[in-house]
Amino acid sequence: MSTAVTLKRTGDKMPLVTKETCADTVYNAIKEGYRLFDGASDYGNEKQAGEGVARAIKDGLVKREDLWITSKVEAAVKYSLALWGLDYFDLYLVHFPISIEYIEPSVKFPPEWWGLDGKIHPVNVPFQETWVEMEKLADKGLAKNIGLSNAQGSFIYDVLRYARIEPQVLQVEIHPYLTQEPLIAFCKTLGIAITAYSSFGPQGYVEIDAHKGAKGLFEHDAVASIASKKGKTPAQILLRWALQQGLAVIPKSNNHERLVQNLEATSFELTSEEVKSISALNIGLRLNDPVDLDTRLAIFA
Amino acid sequence: MSTAVTLKRTGDKMPLVTKETCADTVYNAIKEGYRLFDGASDYGNEKQAGEGVARAIKDGLVKREDLWITSKVEAAVKYSLALWGLDYFDLYLVHFPISIEYIEPSVKFPPEWWGLDGKIHPVNVPFQETWVEMEKLADKGLAKNIGLSNAQGSFIYDVLRYARIEPQVLQVEIHPYLTQEPLIAFCKTLGIAITAYSSFGPQGYVEIDAHKGAKGLFEHDAVASIASKKGKTPAQILLRWALQQGLAVIPKSNNHERLVQNLEATSFELTSEEVKSISALNIGLRLNDPVDLDTRLAIFA
Repeated sequence: MSTAVTLKRTGDKMPLVTKETCADTVYNAIKEGYRLFDGASDYGNEKQAGEGVARAIKDGLVKREDLWITSKVEAAVKYSLALWGLDYFDLYLVHFPISIEYIEPSVKFPPEWWGLDGKIHPVNVPFQETWVEMEKLADKGLAKNIGLSNAQGSFIYDVLRYARIEPQVLQVEIHPYLTQEPLIAFCKTLGIAITAYSSFGPQGYVEIDAHKGAKGLFEHDAVASIASKKGKTPAQILLRWALQQGLAVIPKSNNHERLVQNLEATSFELTSEEVKSISALNIGLRLNDPVDLDTRLAIFA
Repeated sequence: MSTAVTLKRTGDKMPLVTKETCADTVYNAIKEGYRLFDGASDYGNEKQAGEGVARAIKDGLVKREDLWITSKVEAAVKYSLALWGLDYFDLYLVHFPISIEYIEPSVKFPPEWWGLDGKIHPVNVPFQETWVEMEKLADKGLAKNIGLSNAQGSFIYDVLRYARIEPQVLQVEIHPYLTQEPLIAFCKTLGIAITAYSSFGPQGYVEIDAHKGAKGLFEHDAVASIASKKGKTPAQILLRWALQQGLAVIPKSNNHERLVQNLEATSFELTSEEVKSISALNIGLRLNDPVDLDTRLAIFA
């Protein structure tokens, strides 16, 4: 898997394909060639994922330095590192630019969005304070790179006004229904690498009943017809569409065969007309938006 | 002109209709009933507008306290107040959430976007520092209310984390091609009043050749047909469309007849179906976007 982006400040190379789930899946993913794992305390599976990593290192499949482990600041980086059984993260992200009440990991982990009373409690912590803490993690070597997630234009502009260590990566929702070309162009100008999440669009939201009535992208003719012409799966087409725009992708699958298939998105090309015809599906459909949980959290308005 | 919004913190009532231009126009606007004037050092006409205000007060048409004068922080509030010949602004806005190199008013006024070398020079001033200065203006009574302009979701969320004095008003581009319902809903939740600018859409950008190929709204069938049915001008329909959503509007006109006509937007109603049919024109077309000047300024990405 040679496809990678080089991060501006550290020169670190971040692989463009990844996968995260429980111990066996992580272990087998490493065996198949996966090197980037995208976690978060919010996902509640860092311990299991860490077991997969430890077993793979123990069995000699890989060394720690060959892997790229991403996590996100929510409870505490050390708590997450302990769960993973690691000394450092390769990339640590602020999951959302939203400060909410802190809950001790011993009280509730992962904390998710809600307080113990079942309500969301925004707190007045300016993002600059959060970013200074992120920079300390980088200083201490707990995170080799730090970045943002779910951020937009004027917010990013402001972070760059005070950042001593600039965000190296922005992780945002990007798929053919939400193409975000202006944000991609902005990050290119700024030298910030982008990781696209929810590459399959509504597919990942069906089981939590949050696909917002959108037609699946696998079944969409604009995707399926190219897949059929190229002898690829629609998932591979969608990943390739993102990769060809220079985006890192983090497809989630618990199915070994699909996991192997997804890796193959690095091994073929779409024509620029094919990329364009898929991008034409853009309808500005945002599937992961905290405003759906609480109207005070309209960070994408 | 009874239509007004009450600002949360101060209880001040901000009129929902306004007009700004040179001395005679301002004078005549006051005579016709206009009470809100929206200026900025960047517009380069504060001195002329101030002359119109002074004459209207001298002639007994109006008292200072009956007027609402808005300006925006760019060079210095005192410099702008001196040009207007006023002691305070009713509302002072940060024109764009973009910090650029300061230029002494004596050297170049208005400073506009460009330095003396003709290039744009972003500087590393976090917005929180700007906002603390804005709060001092409010403390000193130079601005009775302070607010934001051209800001979006996550940026506004962050300002509210550190604001000692919350922004009372957000001034943003809103017209049927850029309806911004999520932003309107967010500000309603937060108790921030919205002033919509560029109510006529592409019309205001034709003379600077920046209408981005969009069809004029006055000529658009969805607007013209309602205008014809109601016996109103398309401009009145567009202003009414905004007013009925609780937005303040600031139509610009140097033509006395149109200036009088625009005021009449407060004196009739659209049905909710008519409002909806106009809102359906939304195509997310942003006409005033600093990214068009410089790719580093993609604050709306």
